Amino acid sequence: MTTTLLTGGEVVSATGRGPADVLVDGTRIAAVLAPGSTLLGHDLAGSVDRVIDASGKYVIPGGIDAHTHMQLPFGGTEASDTFETGTIAAAWGGTTSIIDFAVQRTGERVEDGLAAWHEKAAGNCAVDYGFHQIIGGVDDDALKAMERLVEEGITSYKLFMAYPGVFYSDDAQVLRAMQKAADLGLLTMMHAENGPAIDVLAAQLAESGRTDPYFHGVARAWQLEEEATHRAIMLADVTGAPLYVVHVSAKQAVAQIAGARDAGKNVFGETCPQYLYLSLEEQLGASSEQWGAFEGAKWVCSTPLRSRAEGHQESMWRALRTNDLQMVSTDHCPFCMKDQKELGLGDFRKIPNGIGSVEHRMDLMYQGVVTGEITLERWVELTSTTPARMFGLAGRKGVIAPGADADVVVYDPRGRTSIGVGKTHHMNMDHSAWEGFEVDGHVDVVLSRGEVVVADGQFHGRPGHGEYLRRGLTQYLA
Amino acid sequence: MTTTLLTGGEVVSATGRGPADVLVDGTRIAAVLAPGSTLLGHDLAGSVDRVIDASGKYVIPGGIDAHTHMQLPFGGTEASDTFETGTIAAAWGGTTSIIDFAVQRTGERVEDGLAAWHEKAAGNCAVDYGFHQIIGGVDDDALKAMERLVEEGITSYKLFMAYPGVFYSDDAQVLRAMQKAADLGLLTMMHAENGPAIDVLAAQLAESGRTDPYFHGVARAWQLEEEATHRAIMLADVTGAPLYVVHVSAKQAVAQIAGARDAGKNVFGETCPQYLYLSLEEQLGASSEQWGAFEGAKWVCSTPLRSRAEGHQESMWRALRTNDLQMVSTDHCPFCMKDQKELGLGDFRKIPNGIGSVEHRMDLMYQGVVTGEITLERWVELTSTTPARMFGLAGRKGVIAPGADADVVVYDPRGRTSIGVGKTHHMNMDHSAWEGFEVDGHVDVVLSRGEVVVADGQFHGRPGHGEYLRRGLTQYLA
Amino acid sequence: MTTTLLTGGEVVSATGRGPADVLVDGTRIAAVLAPGSTLLGHDLAGSVDRVIDASGKYVIPGGIDAHTHMQLPFGGTEASDTFETGTIAAAWGGTTSIIDFAVQRTGERVEDGLAAWHEKAAGNCAVDYGFHQIIGGVDDDALKAMERLVEEGITSYKLFMAYPGVFYSDDAQVLRAMQKAADLGLLTMMHAENGPAIDVLAAQLAESGRTDPYFHGVARAWQLEEEATHRAIMLADVTGAPLYVVHVSAKQAVAQIAGARDAGKNVFGETCPQYLYLSLEEQLGASSEQWGAFEGAKWVCSTPLRSRAEGHQESMWRALRTNDLQMVSTDHCPFCMKDQKELGLGDFRKIPNGIGSVEHRMDLMYQGVVTGEITLERWVELTSTTPARMFGLAGRKGVIAPGADADVVVYDPRGRTSIGVGKTHHMNMDHSAWEGFEVDGHVDVVLSRGEVVVADGQFHGRPGHGEYLRRGLTQYLA
Amino acid sequence: MTTTLLTGGEVVSATGRGPADVLVDGTRIAAVLAPGSTLLGHDLAGSVDRVIDASGKYVIPGGIDAHTHMQLPFGGTEASDTFETGTIAAAWGGTTSIIDFAVQRTGERVEDGLAAWHEKAAGNCAVDYGFHQIIGGVDDDALKAMERLVEEGITSYKLFMAYPGVFYSDDAQVLRAMQKAADLGLLTMMHAENGPAIDVLAAQLAESGRTDPYFHGVARAWQLEEEATHRAIMLADVTGAPLYVVHVSAKQAVAQIAGARDAGKNVFGETCPQYLYLSLEEQLGASSEQWGAFEGAKWVCSTPLRSRAEGHQESMWRALRTNDLQMVSTDHCPFCMKDQKELGLGDFRKIPNGIGSVEHRMDLMYQGVVTGEITLERWVELTSTTPARMFGLAGRKGVIAPGADADVVVYDPRGRTSIGVGKTHHMNMDHSAWEGFEVDGHVDVVLSRGEVVVADGQFHGRPGHGEYLRRGLTQYLA
Repeated sequence: MTTTLLTGGEVVSATGRGPADVLVDGTRIAAVLAPGSTLLGHDLAGSVDRVIDASGKYVIPGGIDAHTHMQLPFGGTEASDTFETGTIAAAWGGTTSIIDFAVQRTGERVEDGLAAWHEKAAGNCAVDYGFHQIIGGVDDDALKAMERLVEEGITSYKLFMAYPGVFYSDDAQVLRAMQKAADLGLLTMMHAENGPAIDVLAAQLAESGRTDPYFHGVARAWQLEEEATHRAIMLADVTGAPLYVVHVSAKQAVAQIAGARDAGKNVFGETCPQYLYLSLEEQLGASSEQWGAFEGAKWVCSTPLRSRAEGHQESMWRALRTNDLQMVSTDHCPFCMKDQKELGLGDFRKIPNGIGSVEHRMDLMYQGVVTGEITLERWVELTSTTPARMFGLAGRKGVIAPGADADVVVYDPRGRTSIGVGKTHHMNMDHSAWEGFEVDGHVDVVLSRGEVVVADGQFHGRPGHGEYLRRGLTQYLA
Repeated sequence: MTTTLLTGGEVVSATGRGPADVLVDGTRIAAVLAPGSTLLGHDLAGSVDRVIDASGKYVIPGGIDAHTHMQLPFGGTEASDTFETGTIAAAWGGTTSIIDFAVQRTGERVEDGLAAWHEKAAGNCAVDYGFHQIIGGVDDDALKAMERLVEEGITSYKLFMAYPGVFYSDDAQVLRAMQKAADLGLLTMMHAENGPAIDVLAAQLAESGRTDPYFHGVARAWQLEEEATHRAIMLADVTGAPLYVVHVSAKQAVAQIAGARDAGKNVFGETCPQYLYLSLEEQLGASSEQWGAFEGAKWVCSTPLRSRAEGHQESMWRALRTNDLQMVSTDHCPFCMKDQKELGLGDFRKIPNGIGSVEHRMDLMYQGVVTGEITLERWVELTSTTPARMFGLAGRKGVIAPGADADVVVYDPRGRTSIGVGKTHHMNMDHSAWEGFEVDGHVDVVLSRGEVVVADGQFHGRPGHGEYLRRGLTQYLA
Repeated sequence: MTTTLLTGGEVVSATGRGPADVLVDGTRIAAVLAPGSTLLGHDLAGSVDRVIDASGKYVIPGGIDAHTHMQLPFGGTEASDTFETGTIAAAWGGTTSIIDFAVQRTGERVEDGLAAWHEKAAGNCAVDYGFHQIIGGVDDDALKAMERLVEEGITSYKLFMAYPGVFYSDDAQVLRAMQKAADLGLLTMMHAENGPAIDVLAAQLAESGRTDPYFHGVARAWQLEEEATHRAIMLADVTGAPLYVVHVSAKQAVAQIAGARDAGKNVFGETCPQYLYLSLEEQLGASSEQWGAFEGAKWVCSTPLRSRAEGHQESMWRALRTNDLQMVSTDHCPFCMKDQKELGLGDFRKIPNGIGSVEHRMDLMYQGVVTGEITLERWVELTSTTPARMFGLAGRKGVIAPGADADVVVYDPRGRTSIGVGKTHHMNMDHSAWEGFEVDGHVDVVLSRGEVVVADGQFHGRPGHGEYLRRGLTQYLA
Repeated sequence: MTTTLLTGGEVVSATGRGPADVLVDGTRIAAVLAPGSTLLGHDLAGSVDRVIDASGKYVIPGGIDAHTHMQLPFGGTEASDTFETGTIAAAWGGTTSIIDFAVQRTGERVEDGLAAWHEKAAGNCAVDYGFHQIIGGVDDDALKAMERLVEEGITSYKLFMAYPGVFYSDDAQVLRAMQKAADLGLLTMMHAENGPAIDVLAAQLAESGRTDPYFHGVARAWQLEEEATHRAIMLADVTGAPLYVVHVSAKQAVAQIAGARDAGKNVFGETCPQYLYLSLEEQLGASSEQWGAFEGAKWVCSTPLRSRAEGHQESMWRALRTNDLQMVSTDHCPFCMKDQKELGLGDFRKIPNGIGSVEHRMDLMYQGVVTGEITLERWVELTSTTPARMFGLAGRKGVIAPGADADVVVYDPRGRTSIGVGKTHHMNMDHSAWEGFEVDGHVDVVLSRGEVVVADGQFHGRPGHGEYLRRGLTQYLA
């Protein structure tokens, strides 16, 4: 078992920071110590296999991206990152755990969907991975199958109020699934958009010739996110089930969540970097020589980008501060422009929905620290500590503490990170939604369960190092 | 320098828990380690002066009571605990830091008030102590004096919207003080009750013969707490000053705070154990052979106890869960029934306002863990971690982390605590507001800066051990 | 043409009251005059065919019940009042106009449904009648048919978010209908309950043996009314359509409507006497020798009766005062216990939903004046003036003003009204939901378009007197 | 007694409109009749002294301006309109009743203040007038004096939370006055701005050289209107007193009122034309050759003009639609630039506060009908019907109904009105806050208690025609 001592850094947690050394023994953190490399006269630095100098840098728990879609079949194609490429990109970006979504659709068995996902991931991941279960076809069989998820280490599942005919559950299905989840302790994750209404609007837009990517966002009006969010909250209230709303982007949806939380309900929400930085106005203005206005397709995701003039982005940052939103995930769902996004040329409804950001989340959120939107501690909480607690990994992940997995990132606040294709990002995409972003801060060293996977600008890890995370029940309930 | 190893316990923080040993070297925590008493082959247990077995128990950061009034002159008498008796009682109850209120009144100099408090406390405290500054007479001189508070380590001050003629500031004074505080980084603490209106109602009640202690609560109607809370929030908004509302007891005041927080304002609030457990109905029903209905005088405090039928207590617990209230302090302000409370026989307005709880806060709040109102982590956060961050002690207090002061409590969840005079509480009071409370949990061992001050049912500390806490600016701003 | 002078009464309008004589010439009001029966020396009393002495009584515009279901096929049976029996009962109760619901279901043509309703009503009504159109199957054909409704004098239509498989529209259908309505100026009426969720809960209750009528109300939880109300508001917001929510019974639904109205949206709501006076607790306690606990079936209606302990009834009265609800209709949908309600013996889901009140609305609401819940003016506004404005009858109905139809009620505030089967009510029901209600006030004389239809405790009208009301667009939009 | 018949017009009320003739007999309305000038064969047109042809025009109840300050001593000068000039201007503008404010200050007797106002007004008014009582010095004597106000026909009184040292009442005074008012049935009118806080901010601005009129609005921040509005609502809640907030201008204050109203409280509010049309931005931009930036002094009023960018004006219009505000008054308080406003040259605090609009209210509000902000019926309600009901004049004023005073305006919707000094307005001012406003609609004929006071572009009235209005208790309580 290798031993490592990280010395001289400032350890940052969700509730504080301070100079400390971190001793790693094998895959786990053995101790957090006052700086100095000695303890009661024992020479620690001389006793370990490897010393990593973190002087002037932050030592933080590895990032946890609780919302990724590797190799997701969608819209006649498949998300372009494999578990291998996706998790390598994650490692590069300081993310040492992902939670991906296994998929079940109407007419399929949950067990089969889950098995397929295990097969895709096993032996291919560079960092640890867990699964949520999408249940796209709630029926007696699927409800029965939910009972075995907890023992499989899958303690959260997702429903869709959007995408009729694909993943959509009607309210009767939502109610029945939530009842079952409440019994089992499963956390219900919800894609909260009124799909049937959206599809009417989208069809009307497309049929009237409004086919550019921009109209994707017009069709998915904020009212329909707010509405579905409220509906999910009330259905959860009837069943007693906790609720976690994914990829919140509308300020009015935040207001619904905030209201539920003020009333003491176990209602949670995440947002994603795209809803903090990008806007509908930019999508409207997007243009390139190659793609013309279809350039905006790179920003087609659901929920959609929202209007900056209406203040949604500002509201997302505020909600991250007020803890009305508790986490930032990526909803990483990459598609190339070529052959994939371009399926929607002439009809925005056929553009595969998704943005790839798994590599950039830690940096993009650190930028919020730089600009004063969030504190350094909150950065760690949003990207690592809360995801661990929310999804049943507390104790193992999300903290720099003895006994925890040694998923550690040395982050350099004086570094810089340039994002874009030409900057050789590591995701399997022919473009970047973040092309040209230049941000402060840099992921210097990444340990995954005690092994250095990134250091000195090199990837030292390997596919297969990442292990499946059998998760416990959520530890975040109030 | 003495070294101590706490072994076998479960260390609890605001965001998690886990088995770990804690090594204390002198006054500070040197390391938090995976259990086992060895590190890289070094025998730690054998290297230390003292090993404390915490098996089966919680190891938590010492409590911080951010709201006490030792020896406060009030209503023609003086709070009955000295800094010595009060801090010994605190130690017994697992509280290793208090923040008391130095007092300035109209016509007095802030410097003098502060000097007087230093004199009362210096050399007498059994645990560490800091000061907030009451400014009861806002004028040019007092505003000028605020400028030196930060360098004195006093980074918070309190204003009163109640008690005209005693501590009261009118809105012009509040505004000017907040402006100054915003410039300086001082945190404004507010007693938020509409004093002028209360005094009218109280006089009318008393003049109509409604003189029992119960009418204290009738006069101090929730509307007048809600109103003042809202007013303080808006005045703070005009000035850009963060705001901390003390002893919140009305659910409608909580709603005002929650609304401000949803809007992203730096508005904070504490409640106290009495507002969680006791009620106006009980005060109405109070009676004893000795005192008759005047027995209720032991529960006369301001803000007052609120009606249970109206759901205030339930709302306080909920607000502690939702983080609309961030802390629990005691507002420890003890008066004996004999010679003190009895000043108000025949006129509730003359009853000295205050309840003594500094010894019981940790136990009373742990009872909330037992009954499921709050989680174990939240208990630590409310009683220690957040008080440290709120009042500029982060890093030193409020966490079990290397480099922090070794203020550590070993808490036995299988123990029991009986509260009351006959149970030999250690506060200088001839009664207890909590007489007869029997709660789960027990403070077993208390370390204050590395010294064992309570163990084996004995007090091992001494007056004068406690040091003055020069506090930094609040570290809790969003 | 007959001329009539009503003398000596106090004319009450929505905004005031005062002594005045009312001159009727033929079917219309010719003048409202200062009392005295002369005008510029002309002897009016001597010039008219008939003088009605209204001394000491109120003279008010005839009631308009905007929500009735005569002869409605529902649950395998048919509402027990014909247009003849129902409108005679209405006349007895001072209601001189009803607006009934023509029905279209999936697979039927709107035109056919409407024609069927004309056939049922034509020549049979004792007072004037209009129609709303239920659209229970929104499809291209139905949307097309909506275009002709305005010229038919049908300017409002109803959708159902409840009753899947019967009247239910999904959100896509709701959206499309609202879009069309916004174009045409039609007012969208909504039965706002989440039917799919209710049906799950109802089935679970029934399958677990909870089959009594009381469980009807348990299954239709307030959350599911609140949710649907909010959803309807948001879908209306997307389309720009005004919205009218029928039979509001949950205080939380009122809060949703109030919020929308505060924001300036054209959102309206009615409640019904049963939601003001009756409660779920009483339904739980209902019992009779004949029916046992099934006695509660007489109070099975949808939305259901709500809990008095939760304060819904109190909230409905308040909303009538604050104008968050604008009208009181009956949702008159009578079924006999024998042969009809008893279809649900052993399964509350099979009890035909409905209560019969068309005869009692004016008296029951006047009782609110007596008890101080509403003012006399508000009584007139809620029962007559606003219904006329809301549903495109302003100028013709709802006011005592020259040019308006002479639908006039002389109401005796010193009279008494006893309600119940034994008191010979005139609805075709074998029981009364209001059995035993004894209220102040009495309908003394009723004129319908200038003809006396009720006077001296006798019915003087006739089926066929009532004319079809070709209504204009709503005149209530802000 | 003169008789008059107004023929051919469209009579507009708060709840409807329709063609009707109006017969005036002496000072009162004798009848409202179906058009045609005959009744039961009697020739009315031939029986009257005078026929006024209102064809193509609206016939509406005369305007009631419930907030004027004629000859008010303020800031070392006196409002420039006498009761004579002010009421003549009112008549020109279709306003046939004013309610002015008698003044009592600290140290003065209420009786004396009231007597002084009677003296100013008696024999000088061209239209009817009533009084509210300002109580600027709440003490035992003033509270005692309130008891006689009702019998004097003064059923409303005003307190100020602004203007310390002038009219200001502290919260104890407000509470005591409201208690007394609740007992007596008096309506409490409130100037809701936090004066002590405003005075601090104003002094700081002035002392830092920010002396232009624009800074008047900066000092009077919306937070301080919102705060005081909330405080007034809560103090009223404690006492059970109804509350009427004058000159509401901040959208956040409207939100406070709306919230109180949703909760069923008797809380009311007025706004004024300046808060609907004018803005802080325009005041900032104001400049003239004569006055430079001091030109903005003409728009110095309290509450101040608010920012258009923040949406206050839009919010006021919305509140008028939603009935969260119930009335529009002018707060007519005219000062000339020369000798009066110019007192504040170099210090905005010394500019007499006030705008003169008594002549323009009906036209400016009709412009809201033209632009679609309000309906025609709402125009009548806001300017006449509700003021009458709010202030105890229902039945006599505010309606076109038999028995009511014949205060009638014939309003020509095809007319035009140009406002400004050069357009010969009739107020005693050397400028107009509305200079250059060109609006649709025109006041053609005005009857005051049966006498034609304006017709054919001529004033036919006379000082002394106007009578004192002994008002009853408010008739607007829910």
